[in-house]
Amino acid sequence: MANLIDIRSVTQLGNAKFPEYVQQSHSKLHNVIWRTPLQNIYVVKKPWNYHVRDAMVQFIDHIHHHYPAVNVIVNEDVADELVHEFSSGGCNDLDKSTKHILYTGKFGDIVDKTDLVVTLGGDGTILRAVSTFSNVTVPPVLSFALGTLGFLLPFDFKKASDTFRMVYESRAKALHRNRLECHVLDHYKHQGQVATMVHAMNDISLHRGSQPNLTSLDIYIDNEFLTTTTADGIVFSTPTGSTAYSLSAGGSITHPLVPCILLTPICPRSLSFRPLILPSTCHIMIRLSELNRNSSIELTIDGIPQRDLLPGDSIHVVSEKGTIYVPGQHEPPTTLSRHTNTANTNSKGIWCIARSEHDWTKDINELLGFNSSFQGKKQYHM
Amino acid sequence: MANLIDIRSVTQLGNAKFPEYVQQSHSKLHNVIWRTPLQNIYVVKKPWNYHVRDAMVQFIDHIHHHYPAVNVIVNEDVADELVHEFSSGGCNDLDKSTKHILYTGKFGDIVDKTDLVVTLGGDGTILRAVSTFSNVTVPPVLSFALGTLGFLLPFDFKKASDTFRMVYESRAKALHRNRLECHVLDHYKHQGQVATMVHAMNDISLHRGSQPNLTSLDIYIDNEFLTTTTADGIVFSTPTGSTAYSLSAGGSITHPLVPCILLTPICPRSLSFRPLILPSTCHIMIRLSELNRNSSIELTIDGIPQRDLLPGDSIHVVSEKGTIYVPGQHEPPTTLSRHTNTANTNSKGIWCIARSEHDWTKDINELLGFNSSFQGKKQYHM
Amino acid sequence: MANLIDIRSVTQLGNAKFPEYVQQSHSKLHNVIWRTPLQNIYVVKKPWNYHVRDAMVQFIDHIHHHYPAVNVIVNEDVADELVHEFSSGGCNDLDKSTKHILYTGKFGDIVDKTDLVVTLGGDGTILRAVSTFSNVTVPPVLSFALGTLGFLLPFDFKKASDTFRMVYESRAKALHRNRLECHVLDHYKHQGQVATMVHAMNDISLHRGSQPNLTSLDIYIDNEFLTTTTADGIVFSTPTGSTAYSLSAGGSITHPLVPCILLTPICPRSLSFRPLILPSTCHIMIRLSELNRNSSIELTIDGIPQRDLLPGDSIHVVSEKGTIYVPGQHEPPTTLSRHTNTANTNSKGIWCIARSEHDWTKDINELLGFNSSFQGKKQYHM
Amino acid sequence: MANLIDIRSVTQLGNAKFPEYVQQSHSKLHNVIWRTPLQNIYVVKKPWNYHVRDAMVQFIDHIHHHYPAVNVIVNEDVADELVHEFSSGGCNDLDKSTKHILYTGKFGDIVDKTDLVVTLGGDGTILRAVSTFSNVTVPPVLSFALGTLGFLLPFDFKKASDTFRMVYESRAKALHRNRLECHVLDHYKHQGQVATMVHAMNDISLHRGSQPNLTSLDIYIDNEFLTTTTADGIVFSTPTGSTAYSLSAGGSITHPLVPCILLTPICPRSLSFRPLILPSTCHIMIRLSELNRNSSIELTIDGIPQRDLLPGDSIHVVSEKGTIYVPGQHEPPTTLSRHTNTANTNSKGIWCIARSEHDWTKDINELLGFNSSFQGKKQYHM
Repeated sequence: MANLIDIRSVTQLGNAKFPEYVQQSHSKLHNVIWRTPLQNIYVVKKPWNYHVRDAMVQFIDHIHHHYPAVNVIVNEDVADELVHEFSSGGCNDLDKSTKHILYTGKFGDIVDKTDLVVTLGGDGTILRAVSTFSNVTVPPVLSFALGTLGFLLPFDFKKASDTFRMVYESRAKALHRNRLECHVLDHYKHQGQVATMVHAMNDISLHRGSQPNLTSLDIYIDNEFLTTTTADGIVFSTPTGSTAYSLSAGGSITHPLVPCILLTPICPRSLSFRPLILPSTCHIMIRLSELNRNSSIELTIDGIPQRDLLPGDSIHVVSEKGTIYVPGQHEPPTTLSRHTNTANTNSKGIWCIARSEHDWTKDINELLGFNSSFQGKKQYHM
Repeated sequence: MANLIDIRSVTQLGNAKFPEYVQQSHSKLHNVIWRTPLQNIYVVKKPWNYHVRDAMVQFIDHIHHHYPAVNVIVNEDVADELVHEFSSGGCNDLDKSTKHILYTGKFGDIVDKTDLVVTLGGDGTILRAVSTFSNVTVPPVLSFALGTLGFLLPFDFKKASDTFRMVYESRAKALHRNRLECHVLDHYKHQGQVATMVHAMNDISLHRGSQPNLTSLDIYIDNEFLTTTTADGIVFSTPTGSTAYSLSAGGSITHPLVPCILLTPICPRSLSFRPLILPSTCHIMIRLSELNRNSSIELTIDGIPQRDLLPGDSIHVVSEKGTIYVPGQHEPPTTLSRHTNTANTNSKGIWCIARSEHDWTKDINELLGFNSSFQGKKQYHM
Repeated sequence: MANLIDIRSVTQLGNAKFPEYVQQSHSKLHNVIWRTPLQNIYVVKKPWNYHVRDAMVQFIDHIHHHYPAVNVIVNEDVADELVHEFSSGGCNDLDKSTKHILYTGKFGDIVDKTDLVVTLGGDGTILRAVSTFSNVTVPPVLSFALGTLGFLLPFDFKKASDTFRMVYESRAKALHRNRLECHVLDHYKHQGQVATMVHAMNDISLHRGSQPNLTSLDIYIDNEFLTTTTADGIVFSTPTGSTAYSLSAGGSITHPLVPCILLTPICPRSLSFRPLILPSTCHIMIRLSELNRNSSIELTIDGIPQRDLLPGDSIHVVSEKGTIYVPGQHEPPTTLSRHTNTANTNSKGIWCIARSEHDWTKDINELLGFNSSFQGKKQYHM
Repeated sequence: MANLIDIRSVTQLGNAKFPEYVQQSHSKLHNVIWRTPLQNIYVVKKPWNYHVRDAMVQFIDHIHHHYPAVNVIVNEDVADELVHEFSSGGCNDLDKSTKHILYTGKFGDIVDKTDLVVTLGGDGTILRAVSTFSNVTVPPVLSFALGTLGFLLPFDFKKASDTFRMVYESRAKALHRNRLECHVLDHYKHQGQVATMVHAMNDISLHRGSQPNLTSLDIYIDNEFLTTTTADGIVFSTPTGSTAYSLSAGGSITHPLVPCILLTPICPRSLSFRPLILPSTCHIMIRLSELNRNSSIELTIDGIPQRDLLPGDSIHVVSEKGTIYVPGQHEPPTTLSRHTNTANTNSKGIWCIARSEHDWTKDINELLGFNSSFQGKKQYHM
């Protein structure tokens, strides 16, 4: 039975092709048009869940059966898992008359070949899949909810067949979601040079974690001092992330098309630290005050812990599309100077295949229970 | 058919008898024990609703049939309504072999005769019924929800028969709910004398209403200046009222057994006007600053608009059980001097027949949707 | 002494000339460049305040002395007030050797001639001055604080002389502030035709005012049902207005350059009505549910009460720059169809002369006391 | 010079004597009356601060000079520190003609001998000093602010001389502050037996700390299920602690005389988790859901980290004065059964020497900046 599946190197595939994103008049969404047919799809799944593994097998089988020209790419560990699964006969629903070819390889090679990302799982699966493409243009993302529906999970897996056909035939529409860039400067080692950059689709948070003392973070906007936190921490969020951690910390719910950065304090030791909505063109710099001398601060990006920051370190948060502001003498991050507003916006951010114009309105009602009214059964008889 | 019903004067009935409220060990509730049998029940209903009128007829019929010794008192307008209803043959469910005797009269007379208040309707019906007893001890209140369930509405009308029997047989338990007293001093006319006093079961609010300018209210606690509002208004709430207007204005949800007064600002022009929880023994004085010269301020008690207040007027808010504080030279309200902590607590406040020890926990979950989790359908198949 | 002042018709002046607003690279502000010299200034003041009247006389005297070619326009009532003031010799600081010429006339004529608006007073003075230009392009606005500093009041009157020179010599910079349009449709009279349109620089609020019942407003975003309020009301705010009523109601503080509309509930009867940040390209429709049958709802725009709305009425709120969305069958407001994103943005909104790049950061700290830390005097000795 | 100071064993002193706390009519405070003169004072200081050490030396010198019959007790490490300080001649202000006798010993022995606790430092110093007396009656606490004023720090050190005399001469008044008890049950080891109990003057918090996943805590009130958190954590606070962590997390400001327990969520993943105010007579049980399988939860009491909790563990939170509720079959903590409302309240909680009736009103204004109005300098001239 092992010969039902054949694993090949992803490097054998043709290079990635991007679709065009065509603005529609009177629409919040763009049409996703493939000038040449979509060929290589990278299917990513939530780990450690046999329901999801079964669904993936089902989906791959469907693709191979109905779209023989489409190549399926998976991660190396997933390839191993599927070989084991296919050979053990675990997949009952499988069409066993077809030989299944899967492509895999290193992340760098997968990135070069992927036309479309398909995710099966929850929000975390998307955030992880997208982070693979951190420094290059991200292919459009088609996300199926497996387990629970979510803001980043417009599609029901039950409709995977119709949904994929819509994408394949250039009939799909996409919502553009901006990301944040987080530039971490390690004060002692790098003397102000940008050490690392990570994209955030949802949010960037700084938190004291298990440290007993409150954080003392100096925050500057466009080189102007804004405030110093005395708080558990702070979260910088995209509009997409406004329904994630920022919401828990008291931030407003923000439509994904508002070009802004949310600054929301986490348990501030102040009565007057109202959440802020900043322009997406602004340049935020956070410096860990030396008053934090004995502590480290935890940096988390899209729910993934990064290395702890130390007093003297600083981070810069900007929108992926860049800032209008040229950093001054105030610890200039050299790689930020490339940022201008003239960047081609289509090659930035994430294009997420959308269900309809009104996904957001539906989602805040159905998923968040926005403005729920108080209950009461009607009844009038003894 | 008109002879099916007979209206008599409430003054013919024996005087009101109060039950004993016996503290149970290890319980938040008191047993309601009738040393002599319960005789006179005052049945109050929500107006203008034929469902509720039908329910009332059903309930009276049930009482007359099963408890021949129990007298039913109704308001004069309700008596008229029922005469019309009975004579028109509108009540199909009615046992027409019984002659129905109803007692009615002036409010003062009803108050003197009532052993138990039974309300049919919503929260507003209870608040109105109770306000009839404003300056005297209130009989225990048995409330049936007709229309919607609510915090003050523990009982389903479907179970009216069993519930009434439980009360009649001294097997019922009651929760004690404190009220607030609102003393209004009209500065110009009364020179600091207390002009009027109204009880509040839920809340006392001061609001600019349709006036364009924000209210400027000077607030004193136990004769000490606390703050001056620059706000739409302010609400003083009992714990019972913590799920009413105070909740909308951002106040905490407070268990009815916490002896406190909630002070919650309404749209304050300040970032730091956090809601306050004050001891029930405190004495709150609010003076309308002369800075409000051209405006009046609306006073609302338990949702009922009172006469507007004018600059120079002041109101005093205290718990019905009294304050430990003796007002100083700061505009002493003479009738407040009677307040001490030694008052017999059983004759103050409202004894509400309760469903169980845990009504509150159930209600904040079922009625308010407290701490609702975000939704997501589970689904795993194409 | 009466001949010290000469009142002429504003129609004698040349037509208004607009400056160019030149985007600066790496700046949030635009340069305000006069291609031909600034000639006609319309000076507006806060009424009923003799301090402000004195300041106005001082300012006019300064202009006439130092800028002989600049014409000063005032409102008709202000002209009358000044004639009386000059002739009574009330202005001690006045240069009595100069004859003062003031221009005045009807609002429509003033609008046609004004190159620059200068306001003396508070936020209300600006909002009123700007509302005069409701349906035409608004000249740049130079605002001096008299009385209190504010978000719309960057300049200290002490520096009026230097500040005006900076504007006159094309060295000033301006911040662009978007406005909202509020289209009121009277259901019964106009059958869905737009009846009136008013601009809002700060906010549009709907409130129950003195009505005892909560508002029930159906809110649609881009023709999609969003929610129904059960609340005191709701406020739609520009980012400029985010520090006004929206702030009091719990909204986030929003930088004026974020293109968005804030939807903030006022005392909602729900635990889950979190404030929303909507794209400035969205089209909001609010319909007064027929469930409000016995009530009217108060509409207030920039603090000015409008006529009350009735059940069945609806209002549309859009950004002045237009919406991307074409209204569907859902009660299309015909005049809204002109709205597109291609409008010349320079002729929309209000150009406010700014102090510096960082006015906002300074203002939220100094005016609002943003993130105030808790106090404590340092002291160590007996 | 070393002979200026003499360290003796605290066991040589007479046993602790408690004052009487006499309720005053019309007062929130109790008089603190010493039937026999106050003799043994335990002076506690903030560590690692030479300003505070100098102040302590000053204070001890003052006591020895003016109250020769009063014995001063200090911690062992403080005794060592002072010996070194005295012998190095570091204290310039010291009266070197007096021989200073200090008493010290084990904590248990100090506890047995202390009539009055005097703290020099901040809130943390008081919390630490009081925790020494965790399971026995706490002597009255006189706290001097060194560094910053605070809610628990009514007295300015500059007035230490007058303040101490007032206490010594039975002219002082005290505010009673309730504490919480936190009973930790280790599920696996102790099979439901109470393992440890710690008092909290401010608060008890459960937090995920550095764990990436949200906490899932099942909360029961009086054996009735209330809710399950999906949150960073939760804080249970006394009214005293309502201005500490609960405030940061969004809780109401609560007067110390309100007998209640605040339940405030920390960054809940819900729009409807409003803070709760529970009766001080309630019994709260929190069980770490097995859904937290891979995590531990951090328990912090009055800012001091305790050992981490594991899934399956549970904690019980009750007021020190006891609960009216007898735990049912739901994992009964045996040591809780002793709790009744009949306990002598004077021997529970902390008696804090107070400045005046109105400390709280003053403190929320001066320390917290409660209801700060928005600023604006008045100015009217060019």
